[in-house]
Amino acid sequence: MISWSSLYHVVEAMMPLYAAMALGYASVRKKAFTPEQCAGINHFVALLAVPLLIFRMISSNNPYTMNIRFLAADTLQKVIILAALAAWARFSNNGSIAWVITLFSLATLPNTVLMGVPVLRGMYGPMSENLMVQIVVLQFVVWYVLVVFLFEYMAAQNAFMEQQQMPPPQANGSHSVDIPAVNADGSDPDVSIAQEETIRPSGMLILVMAVKKILKIPSTYASLLGLFWSLIAFRFGIKMPAIIDNSLSIISVSAIGLGMFSVGAFMAQRKKFITCGYYLAVLAMVMRFLIGPIVMLVSSFAVGLQGVFLNVGVVQAALPLAVLSFVYAEEYNVHPDIMSTGVIVGIFISVPLTILYYVLLGLER
Amino acid sequence: MISWSSLYHVVEAMMPLYAAMALGYASVRKKAFTPEQCAGINHFVALLAVPLLIFRMISSNNPYTMNIRFLAADTLQKVIILAALAAWARFSNNGSIAWVITLFSLATLPNTVLMGVPVLRGMYGPMSENLMVQIVVLQFVVWYVLVVFLFEYMAAQNAFMEQQQMPPPQANGSHSVDIPAVNADGSDPDVSIAQEETIRPSGMLILVMAVKKILKIPSTYASLLGLFWSLIAFRFGIKMPAIIDNSLSIISVSAIGLGMFSVGAFMAQRKKFITCGYYLAVLAMVMRFLIGPIVMLVSSFAVGLQGVFLNVGVVQAALPLAVLSFVYAEEYNVHPDIMSTGVIVGIFISVPLTILYYVLLGLER
Repeated sequence: MISWSSLYHVVEAMMPLYAAMALGYASVRKKAFTPEQCAGINHFVALLAVPLLIFRMISSNNPYTMNIRFLAADTLQKVIILAALAAWARFSNNGSIAWVITLFSLATLPNTVLMGVPVLRGMYGPMSENLMVQIVVLQFVVWYVLVVFLFEYMAAQNAFMEQQQMPPPQANGSHSVDIPAVNADGSDPDVSIAQEETIRPSGMLILVMAVKKILKIPSTYASLLGLFWSLIAFRFGIKMPAIIDNSLSIISVSAIGLGMFSVGAFMAQRKKFITCGYYLAVLAMVMRFLIGPIVMLVSSFAVGLQGVFLNVGVVQAALPLAVLSFVYAEEYNVHPDIMSTGVIVGIFISVPLTILYYVLLGLER
Repeated sequence: MISWSSLYHVVEAMMPLYAAMALGYASVRKKAFTPEQCAGINHFVALLAVPLLIFRMISSNNPYTMNIRFLAADTLQKVIILAALAAWARFSNNGSIAWVITLFSLATLPNTVLMGVPVLRGMYGPMSENLMVQIVVLQFVVWYVLVVFLFEYMAAQNAFMEQQQMPPPQANGSHSVDIPAVNADGSDPDVSIAQEETIRPSGMLILVMAVKKILKIPSTYASLLGLFWSLIAFRFGIKMPAIIDNSLSIISVSAIGLGMFSVGAFMAQRKKFITCGYYLAVLAMVMRFLIGPIVMLVSSFAVGLQGVFLNVGVVQAALPLAVLSFVYAEEYNVHPDIMSTGVIVGIFISVPLTILYYVLLGLER
């Protein structure tokens, strides 16, 4: 059973995130910050604060004691959802690769870094932070690479079709992004290939381009470097010197506050919160807060995950949509309105829903 | 005697500050941040992060257990230096109110918030943080008000002289500032009076204008609010609820890292580090790192301050120049080149000098 005091701890963990977001929102609305000034803060978050936070999180996590069952459940959830969407895209008339990417992102990519770590720590203590870090590693090293691969594949396909003098489908090539709360800094809008090619590009070539593109994102670098460091450090018992760790943390501590501030500033710069219509907004919320966690629950049972690990897995699957998912949707112009709605509305809806999952899972224990 | 390990702790406390500064410097030099983006970060620091940090520091400090002897020594130091400078200005041919303000700021206003608290904590433990907070209160509530009063007085005097068809002396009215690392946000460049007045303004009127001007600075507000809260809270045993304290700290933790980053970015945007010539640069350093601490030592002996309190007092007096002092010098156009040099060169010189004072004072114990 969940006690009132543990529920209060959860609210205590979530409140500061929303306070920082509200401050960002109010600051822009009251014109205390210009859009350019917000872009500066946002740039700092994306280029320095979040990557340093990710590096610190991953580098201090022992990769040899990762919970394989936990990661298997997380992986199975994503594979099940991807397979179901792929089957639907193949056999349905309405299916398209664009929708596969959108629905996959909505259902499987929660905000792990800014919200996941502090909220889960509030719920299940410091041990859950460790589990979240393991999910962050996979998110950056596997799943975002896959998402970008699919985007690039689609862009290549569309470009090929255009070459064949066919009318282009809804989604088109990449363009650069500057408003989003956490942008893919350094990503080169010209990197997507195939626009110039006349022959159908191979899957291998597209994969190379996707990896190249994802490697331009500081957070990916940070994940890989952190993983590399942790593999060496925990193998040979090397400890990061306090002087270096403190030098990293003086910047990384700002990531969550500034990140949520940026999300709030991003909201304030939008004309409406729901830009994709109510039907699609509801669809987005169902994918995020119902399909994602339920498939996670099923996957957890399938691999035999139990107790607090199961709870952490399901609750993190019910967090708001990752801001980076919106950034890519905007960059490739594939349903950015749905993803923006998913991020913004999701943040509000997640307060009761995440707590509801927390309470329900607590009952079951 | 100071041990090697305690010396290492000091370096450990200082290093992150310089790492954040170096990151800011390199980011601007490598063109990873535009001047507008830096201005955004700087604006965030000045408007939100530093004021929230000051509020948290002061509101959590028990005003009823302040060390009166410690504050008396600090006050005496400033009064001695001010009196000496005033006498010099009155009886010397070279003396002027502009030089009184410049030399007073150089000798008595160290960087207490961004550098003082972390460095002194590294040297003398958490108890010194408390002492630093007491100095911060006086700095914002008394000494900056005095400095701005003197600036306004001078501006009024100059305006009066101009009205009398006399040639204006070197310092003139206020103008707005946008480059400085921590700027006086919200300060209204039109607030300085007397430009329009034809009669000589009264001292009282100038004081009112100075207070009005200083009240537009978020850090002053934060100091007063923090003091107000602490007077009530420690009187009636009220504790700040954790949920509010955490909501404040999610932003305030970013202050020191972002603040030092901004100082580095400010340096990178200057063409030269020493803009006032070597003679004046040496003068500035002598005032900051020799006169200031020595007068503090004398004042401490005079009021009977001893032991670790004496050490904290002298070492904090040997910190680099407060960035805010430069901001005002720039705004009123009174020797901004000397103050910029004082901030930048002071930060580099302070590493060996602050440690030297720390070691010398350790010997004496």
